[in-house]
Amino acid sequence: MTDEEWMELALAEAWKGVGKTAPNPPVGAVIVKEGILLGAGWHRKAGLPHAEVEAISDATAKHGKAALRGATAYVTLEPCSTVGRTPACTSGLIDAGISRVVYACEDPNPAHAGAADGVLRAAGIRVTSGILREKCEIVLRPFSKVQRYGLPWVMWKCAMSLDGKITRPEGEGQWLSGEESRADVQRLRSGVDAILTSGQTVRRDNPALTIRQPELLEGRDQPWRVVVTDQPETMPAHAPLFSDQWKQRTLIRSRADREGMLRRLVTEQGVMSVMLEAGGKFSASMFYAGLVDEVVIYYAPMLCGGTIPALAGESFPKSIAVTDITIESFGSDFRLRGLVKK
Amino acid sequence: MTDEEWMELALAEAWKGVGKTAPNPPVGAVIVKEGILLGAGWHRKAGLPHAEVEAISDATAKHGKAALRGATAYVTLEPCSTVGRTPACTSGLIDAGISRVVYACEDPNPAHAGAADGVLRAAGIRVTSGILREKCEIVLRPFSKVQRYGLPWVMWKCAMSLDGKITRPEGEGQWLSGEESRADVQRLRSGVDAILTSGQTVRRDNPALTIRQPELLEGRDQPWRVVVTDQPETMPAHAPLFSDQWKQRTLIRSRADREGMLRRLVTEQGVMSVMLEAGGKFSASMFYAGLVDEVVIYYAPMLCGGTIPALAGESFPKSIAVTDITIESFGSDFRLRGLVKK
Repeated sequence: MTDEEWMELALAEAWKGVGKTAPNPPVGAVIVKEGILLGAGWHRKAGLPHAEVEAISDATAKHGKAALRGATAYVTLEPCSTVGRTPACTSGLIDAGISRVVYACEDPNPAHAGAADGVLRAAGIRVTSGILREKCEIVLRPFSKVQRYGLPWVMWKCAMSLDGKITRPEGEGQWLSGEESRADVQRLRSGVDAILTSGQTVRRDNPALTIRQPELLEGRDQPWRVVVTDQPETMPAHAPLFSDQWKQRTLIRSRADREGMLRRLVTEQGVMSVMLEAGGKFSASMFYAGLVDEVVIYYAPMLCGGTIPALAGESFPKSIAVTDITIESFGSDFRLRGLVKK
Repeated sequence: MTDEEWMELALAEAWKGVGKTAPNPPVGAVIVKEGILLGAGWHRKAGLPHAEVEAISDATAKHGKAALRGATAYVTLEPCSTVGRTPACTSGLIDAGISRVVYACEDPNPAHAGAADGVLRAAGIRVTSGILREKCEIVLRPFSKVQRYGLPWVMWKCAMSLDGKITRPEGEGQWLSGEESRADVQRLRSGVDAILTSGQTVRRDNPALTIRQPELLEGRDQPWRVVVTDQPETMPAHAPLFSDQWKQRTLIRSRADREGMLRRLVTEQGVMSVMLEAGGKFSASMFYAGLVDEVVIYYAPMLCGGTIPALAGESFPKSIAVTDITIESFGSDFRLRGLVKK
């Protein structure tokens, strides 16, 4: 197997942590010796061991401590070289007798980037970086954005008709998208730390904004449910958001300063990633403010006409380019996913 | 080769006639004997020989008359058995000594459907029908609709942003879609007999609505350009539609009776297929009236916000389901194509 192929395994480990690790990044690692996978691990939660330590423990449990001497560690993110809530991973790798470390992405904090290389090399460990970097960066995007800008990664999720409308004609019910799309939304929710909506959406649709499948909730809490409104007194008290068993996960925030609101979600709740699920006006205002990073649109195979568009209000001063588009089918809907070009 | 594979060749011939044959259907044929393709042909224009006769002529020219004795003819549409502007094709097949006829689709006119079978069998010819029928029906849709309902096939073509808007922010120019999409629109135009637009679109966008590449115009005229307006006096006289070299192909029609207008395009201009290229209000009114059969949307990779949607006006009384959706990339746009569920 090539370095890239081993790193794919480490990346698969990292994905297991998405939505569970904030404010830490999801990271995966594998330990390999002479073409044999000795162990694998991923970071499960802030305060618990880092991925490298998990992988070392797994390999030690399966093959004994001695087997790790001369092994290679593949890690999706540069190992930390400073002591935080857990010991530095570079020490763990050195102590285990690892002779080569391969990592995909440098620490997104420019002050730390590449710092591990010197520490590891000083201990006689060979270091290779940048393997499968682009692919591994995807799971790190929320963490990187927080590190660089103090802002969370914001994904706008919207279900619309082929003509860009978010309501169906009267009497057809609330749902545009089908069961498969809604199941996918549940998976996406389980990968974010918070869901952002507007008071208007709460008043109109009364959503629960929860993760409903127990298996998607494993190892994490319900996402924070953040309602942006300047009229909290108009919120329906019996709405699930304010009355269900997770009501303490519902926050009300002012409309005044959207960027500041997002910054405080980072500093106060440790949020790295946010899903924006709201009506056309509030969603458009978030784009207008340049706060959206990713777009996930479920197109339902229908035309609705009418006047309730997915993005409402004034035309943007400049159109917002969407790049890296992928399209996938979900039942008879299709999902478009892409990045906002910055 | 199987019957289906030979029929694919006949179908490829039929496609060459799309947009050129109105009020006749595009049809293709191949003549085959002992696994050898003897000849191929397609119907080029009303008044010119039918596909079967073209294929017989081609085979005769290449292999001599005698070679056709005992051959099989594959035709995408049931051969005509009545004398029209040209002799009946059943006679041509009998006279040529064809011993087996395979066709895909029955005559869409219920009064004629299957009539060829008896005529051919009476002459000792074996007949197989229904081979590759669904695929061959696609090229026949406009002809079939005219035969059954006296109405043309209407394809709504629209370029929009991912959020369903048809105008870009001020200063970004008129085009949402890229070069590859616009080239595809040219190809689609070359397959229709008329382009339908509204007075408002003419006033606002001043489109030419022509086929611009000479190779796409080969064997056909420019499409009829039909402007629906009750204020013909407000049309800009110097607009290409009213002043270019094809101005006699521009028709002005009243908004009053859209279905009657389409029926008259069939009876007066021999139109079978129409592309609807118009703003949100007029387009929506055509859907509202149940007159649209097909949807072709080019999504440009951008979000525009604003208030000019692809389908405007009141919400439809019932959402319009789109089926048989295919998605294809054109440059950085993607094209969704589907059928309106009736």
